[in-house]
Amino acid sequence: MQLATGLDLEDFLIAPDPSAPRLTRAVEGLDQTGAPTALAVVEERPLTIYLNAQEIVTAMTIGDYPEYLALGFLKNQGMLLADDVVTGVDYDEELETVVVRTRRKTSYEEKLKKKTRTSGCAVGTVFGDMMEGLEGVTLPAGELRTSWLYALSAKINRTPSLYLEAGAIHGTVLCRQDRPLVYMEDVGRHNAVDKIAGWMVQTGEGAADKILYTTGRLTSEMVIKTAMMGIPVLASRSGFTAWGVEIARQVGLTLIGRMRGQRFVCLSGAERLVWDADPSAVPEEERKHRRKSAAE
Amino acid sequence: MQLATGLDLEDFLIAPDPSAPRLTRAVEGLDQTGAPTALAVVEERPLTIYLNAQEIVTAMTIGDYPEYLALGFLKNQGMLLADDVVTGVDYDEELETVVVRTRRKTSYEEKLKKKTRTSGCAVGTVFGDMMEGLEGVTLPAGELRTSWLYALSAKINRTPSLYLEAGAIHGTVLCRQDRPLVYMEDVGRHNAVDKIAGWMVQTGEGAADKILYTTGRLTSEMVIKTAMMGIPVLASRSGFTAWGVEIARQVGLTLIGRMRGQRFVCLSGAERLVWDADPSAVPEEERKHRRKSAAE
Repeated sequence: MQLATGLDLEDFLIAPDPSAPRLTRAVEGLDQTGAPTALAVVEERPLTIYLNAQEIVTAMTIGDYPEYLALGFLKNQGMLLADDVVTGVDYDEELETVVVRTRRKTSYEEKLKKKTRTSGCAVGTVFGDMMEGLEGVTLPAGELRTSWLYALSAKINRTPSLYLEAGAIHGTVLCRQDRPLVYMEDVGRHNAVDKIAGWMVQTGEGAADKILYTTGRLTSEMVIKTAMMGIPVLASRSGFTAWGVEIARQVGLTLIGRMRGQRFVCLSGAERLVWDADPSAVPEEERKHRRKSAAE
Repeated sequence: MQLATGLDLEDFLIAPDPSAPRLTRAVEGLDQTGAPTALAVVEERPLTIYLNAQEIVTAMTIGDYPEYLALGFLKNQGMLLADDVVTGVDYDEELETVVVRTRRKTSYEEKLKKKTRTSGCAVGTVFGDMMEGLEGVTLPAGELRTSWLYALSAKINRTPSLYLEAGAIHGTVLCRQDRPLVYMEDVGRHNAVDKIAGWMVQTGEGAADKILYTTGRLTSEMVIKTAMMGIPVLASRSGFTAWGVEIARQVGLTLIGRMRGQRFVCLSGAERLVWDADPSAVPEEERKHRRKSAAE
């Protein structure tokens, strides 16, 4: 069968903007021969996220879509619940802060105040809450055609991106069937995912028919975030961690890794797979589209 | 000139142990043809670090050298000062905790208690402290021969490691001249660096004549940690972030990136470089030793 691997940027609702001046900087240095050279290097900025009056975390981010990042982070941490009404999301570029305001004080703030008095850092707390948040999460059934996986891989690798421009950055793409919809990049792969979650919160886009593609490793954090978003499939060209696989199996998430050219491995949720593509008919990745370890 | 690229594991004080049963797990799944396959997958465990009675953070780690990780994390965060006397480091495998005890209550605990009452998470705080910690840091002068960089690259790529065994993991290596000394791996590149910092605290090993090699990106966090350790050179096969370069230039750190085969780029501290190797005489990386994006 014919794979739909044609690249049409029109398909994207949000595509990377490699030319955005605020996201990269030309930096001068020397190459291995001692000759002057200039590189495009990705930016990295602190962004402090507040939930109402409560400072929650300072994230290191490339700096685009701060509102989506804040909304998505709070959602994926279980700090914003389904019945919380967001009354405002205010970004202050100068102060490098985003304040997410909700109608009623969220239960999370009290909890956090109480816990942090004895804990010192919410990281553990937050992580605990994420696991709690997973209780009762059941991901919808549905089919995942292997032809979609190959098509998405081919399209995403050839989409102009900050990665191809400057490297040292992770990409995460929200997809439906063989179509990439929202492509976010960030210095931290978790930020890229949170920005997609924020976009979904903002637009009310459903998760049941979506596939999340990431360039990053399939760690527990990535699996938990995907499950918190209600997305039943997480695919990556990178590898797995044991706990990531364990959690994926607990919540019934389809986990696809090491997806390169003709190859991939499925370590969880194989029941969704529909084998409609002949791997040997899939072209291997062209060298120039192959992701190197620059984003490690 | 002849490059010293011979691999002698005897050179290492600490080398990776890919065969350690606790660090990887065989996980079964399906490959792209639907055939059953089994992968070696790296472990990932939470480890909660305490400073005396104060819970500081929960790190996700592969689980080896928890004492070094705790010591190094606290040191690199500026929570353990030069004049703090460590009276004990107690790891509890069952509780997944490490408690670092100091003779006197560290100033950090009070500060943290005060800040977290209003901040909710120490991440921002901690980050602020790291930048504070950098004030007055001056890294020692010294020479960095390009032949050492090529030799280290070649040796480290061919050293048996969890990365070569299972992928999805970062490596960081403490080196002197062309000799790799301590090679730590972890699911988080910051953990691998912290474990090296902990080893240096424990052994009292000096930093002035060292080179830190990492598989990960040269982010602000990596540059700050290296400077906090007093190591004047940070080299990576991966790329840069703009803020990482900025901080490196502020503290006079030599920053080498995109180091692959014959190529590298120096974006800070080029004054330490001694050009004693002919790049064209350096063999390109063999495919099987080339790091792929599995650790992204």
